[in-house]
Amino acid sequence: MGAGHEFDLIRRLERRWGPAAQGLGDDAAVLDVPAGSRLVVSTDTSVEGVHFRRDWLTTGEIGYRSSVAALSDLAAMAAEPLGMVVALTLPADLAEAIDDIGNGIADASRTARCPIVGGDLTRGDQLSLTVTVLGFSVHPVRRRGARPGQDIVVTGRLGGPGAALRALSEGRMPEPTHRERFARPVPRLREAGWLAQAGATAMIDISDGLAPEARHLAAASGLTMVIDLDVLPAMAGLDAAQAALSGEEYELLATVPAGPDLAAFAHAFGIPLTRIGAVQDGEATATFLRGGDRVDLAGGYDHFSP
Amino acid sequence: MGAGHEFDLIRRLERRWGPAAQGLGDDAAVLDVPAGSRLVVSTDTSVEGVHFRRDWLTTGEIGYRSSVAALSDLAAMAAEPLGMVVALTLPADLAEAIDDIGNGIADASRTARCPIVGGDLTRGDQLSLTVTVLGFSVHPVRRRGARPGQDIVVTGRLGGPGAALRALSEGRMPEPTHRERFARPVPRLREAGWLAQAGATAMIDISDGLAPEARHLAAASGLTMVIDLDVLPAMAGLDAAQAALSGEEYELLATVPAGPDLAAFAHAFGIPLTRIGAVQDGEATATFLRGGDRVDLAGGYDHFSP
Repeated sequence: MGAGHEFDLIRRLERRWGPAAQGLGDDAAVLDVPAGSRLVVSTDTSVEGVHFRRDWLTTGEIGYRSSVAALSDLAAMAAEPLGMVVALTLPADLAEAIDDIGNGIADASRTARCPIVGGDLTRGDQLSLTVTVLGFSVHPVRRRGARPGQDIVVTGRLGGPGAALRALSEGRMPEPTHRERFARPVPRLREAGWLAQAGATAMIDISDGLAPEARHLAAASGLTMVIDLDVLPAMAGLDAAQAALSGEEYELLATVPAGPDLAAFAHAFGIPLTRIGAVQDGEATATFLRGGDRVDLAGGYDHFSP
Repeated sequence: MGAGHEFDLIRRLERRWGPAAQGLGDDAAVLDVPAGSRLVVSTDTSVEGVHFRRDWLTTGEIGYRSSVAALSDLAAMAAEPLGMVVALTLPADLAEAIDDIGNGIADASRTARCPIVGGDLTRGDQLSLTVTVLGFSVHPVRRRGARPGQDIVVTGRLGGPGAALRALSEGRMPEPTHRERFARPVPRLREAGWLAQAGATAMIDISDGLAPEARHLAAASGLTMVIDLDVLPAMAGLDAAQAALSGEEYELLATVPAGPDLAAFAHAFGIPLTRIGAVQDGEATATFLRGGDRVDLAGGYDHFSP
């Protein structure tokens, strides 16, 4: 590519993003955190061949999903979005895909009402996106505040992304509803605000699967998370174990004071909120019950696994 | 690598970072921006084979330089550091280098007094670091505030990184002083604070070379930057053109009210501050003089250049 091409590509992205992008063009972005609020920050990298495959997703979907993976961390803290910065590493043969990737990022930005405030564009052998999200909250919800006797709740219906990935890796066409959940996850930002209002004491987003995330909450809070697989909200045709081990869901797992208004949540957001267990004193781990009996649920996603 | 190895590596980094790291372990970091200050954010990616070569730098230097490249953007805005998040993509054969890379990042963090508050670790084919820096300032200095009649000043002595890169690319050993400036640049954070106090109206860090950065300031401010190459502070043995086109300097180029106290700056920081020109009404570009005659200085660094 010729000299100045990097700047041309950046200008092309800026034109494409239009009002989704704000205040680009300086060495850094300048933002205002509302008085009385704390700043919440998270970064998330998506690498081709590790987090996504180009034959499984469109370039637009890659841009969208990579951004949602980061935005979902703001939801996990019950933070409101302030802005996002996008570092894009683009192989030379993908220079023409920049419009589609940019569209996908802008789509996530609009969905989350989180403007794109900065970024970096660089060449590399492997397509990679690192999205850093900035949010604010008076009282961010962390992983460690759970208390014995509280309810464990989860948003949405689980299993779709896992089922889609299983089909794709076996060379089958995934069910469209499963593929949609895999390719177009929704960051549960407004839902997180509702849960915080309902008194959520610990919260996490389900990126590695419900079972490992429940263990993270248990470890951070030093308590036992007892989860009843019989009531786990799975997508049609999927069993509870599939739902519990499906990653990249971007649904929220939270502990709340007993008896949240599940119907009000469903009415407000059009997705279920389900009570799937309770917090108990005991070993800092998650236990899973089926028909009242304890079952073993190993697994979960680790990018460094074979 | 076995399951859980990603978490093992993250724990290993956390142990290594010790007090340089703060508040890791949640979905996002929580920080406080001092009341009355604005938030300043920038992100910077360094990719192996594009921004650095493993045969030219140690892995520790790669971690250090990649972090300084981002921290320098806070200096360019005259922002004080608040925290940094580090997204590291590591090829499988470099897993053992994580300690050295982590040391380099921690070294930059300590140099800048900017704690590591979060990050992401992922596998990939190509070593890559995306560092996002967060800072604060009551009045961030942007690129666009220059006014006619103001002085143009630059910190330090230029040319070292360019000379080191030239030697390395020709298979020669670089001069140790040049290599040091290339491998161990210093983010000019305190110097930036001094320049802001001295009334700096526009500022930029020299990552692509003084000449192209002067053009950026000119374009943003809509004025002519007239720069006298005869007074450009070059490292020993280098000429003005080499100094003006050397990239990855991480020195600061600023416009200030005429007559800043250059001696006070040198006394405070042990590096020179040099008046190299003046801002004039006219075309939004930079012009370069040698012996009073205008000379053409093309070039500069573009990651998408051939």
